[in-house]
Amino acid sequence: MKNFRHQHHRPKKSLLIVGREAVIEALTAGKQLERIYVQANVHGELIDEIKRLATLQNAPINKVPVEKLNNLNVSNHEGCVALISKIQYQDLQQVISFVVDNGQTPLFVMLDAVTDIRNIGAIARSAYALGAQAIIIPDKGVGTLNEDAILTSAGALENISVCRVQSLMKAVDLLHLNGIKVFATEMTAKKLIYDCNLSEPSAIVMGGEENGIYPALLKICDESYSIPMPGKFESLNVSVATGIFLYEAVRQRLKK
Amino acid sequence: MKNFRHQHHRPKKSLLIVGREAVIEALTAGKQLERIYVQANVHGELIDEIKRLATLQNAPINKVPVEKLNNLNVSNHEGCVALISKIQYQDLQQVISFVVDNGQTPLFVMLDAVTDIRNIGAIARSAYALGAQAIIIPDKGVGTLNEDAILTSAGALENISVCRVQSLMKAVDLLHLNGIKVFATEMTAKKLIYDCNLSEPSAIVMGGEENGIYPALLKICDESYSIPMPGKFESLNVSVATGIFLYEAVRQRLKK
Repeated sequence: MKNFRHQHHRPKKSLLIVGREAVIEALTAGKQLERIYVQANVHGELIDEIKRLATLQNAPINKVPVEKLNNLNVSNHEGCVALISKIQYQDLQQVISFVVDNGQTPLFVMLDAVTDIRNIGAIARSAYALGAQAIIIPDKGVGTLNEDAILTSAGALENISVCRVQSLMKAVDLLHLNGIKVFATEMTAKKLIYDCNLSEPSAIVMGGEENGIYPALLKICDESYSIPMPGKFESLNVSVATGIFLYEAVRQRLKK
Repeated sequence: MKNFRHQHHRPKKSLLIVGREAVIEALTAGKQLERIYVQANVHGELIDEIKRLATLQNAPINKVPVEKLNNLNVSNHEGCVALISKIQYQDLQQVISFVVDNGQTPLFVMLDAVTDIRNIGAIARSAYALGAQAIIIPDKGVGTLNEDAILTSAGALENISVCRVQSLMKAVDLLHLNGIKVFATEMTAKKLIYDCNLSEPSAIVMGGEENGIYPALLKICDESYSIPMPGKFESLNVSVATGIFLYEAVRQRLKK
């Protein structure tokens, strides 16, 4: 009974791929993996191959103690277990091309250090309802997008395009190459979001609740904006802040 | 162990007032009570007096089976236990007068059938940050505003004025008497929130996630508006929707 919480969060066996060769097979077949757990002290050719293929496919690898793998209650894990994605991740360039080809004006949400999967779920829900076409998340530092995340998103996570990238910096470069402006939200920014031109192709970058946007990332954004907060303290939940920024984009695009 | 959840939610003893006379004393002294639990089948003069005083002070009474009271693990409850408010509820007319006297333009949030206390906490946080002066909630059908709610609000619930009223209908009347417009949000409304004049003294009414705003309440509101949602499904979390509506008010009031 003491492991109740743990048991609760143990992934379903049907979502697991167990053993080195099975994981290589899944990666080679292009199966989308949410995460690959590799035992901390194991090495060998197959492990190297897994690392190589995982990098190609933006599948994050977590090094874990053997107990974590044993706890999954699967036999013969050989120091390697992968979790199949509940979400179909998409390639950022392909999404951009698709959106533009369909005559839409890109509106993307990039999440930096937003780790809480309920917040990500809530953001996906707002993004989908408010007409953003994709959310961009890094492949590290984000919780597993599991059933909880999908539930919080009211199903939106299964419908909106989710692009998981190895580097948000490179993603910004790619957005720029495609003529998409990248706007950061920062509490201390002097410019206010209603003065941000969101009618053009845009991506908005939302930072984590703890530390905001990573400085190097902030630096390559086109401009920073803040949400006006006339109240006595400046603090909005990141999913509310994202909803407000996206609404401002909708307002500008509809109102002209 | 099977009562883990129950134990987890058992209120601290320091927050309880136990016994009929003690509850009467607390009510007479003007102590704010979150809720009064009265055993379903008990009667008597003291109970009648409790009901009378509770009505005067908008303290909700829940009739409960004796087991619920026994579970609180207090001695001699005499069929009556009250939970002290963590929040200082305020009188709506007093809040209106205070806001106007201070030269502010009223911006209030009224919650109809928003039962999830985390949503209420998140709404309080946004309301406080975006400069709304009060939230108005009914005394029934709302979960206890406990530590969880305060935590979700990032402390805002202890700072913003919370008015708990017996009737939202009467509250709308009172707002109207004070020259405050009352705007409802409705998914199906044709008018969009950016066409709502929020520069004037206003209250916005947000409905619950299940059924929206109660029809009779909707009827006495001045106008209904919806948030434009160009996405493929129309669904926003109520705390995100509230943040967006409040932001629109801030934008209009700042931008002129």
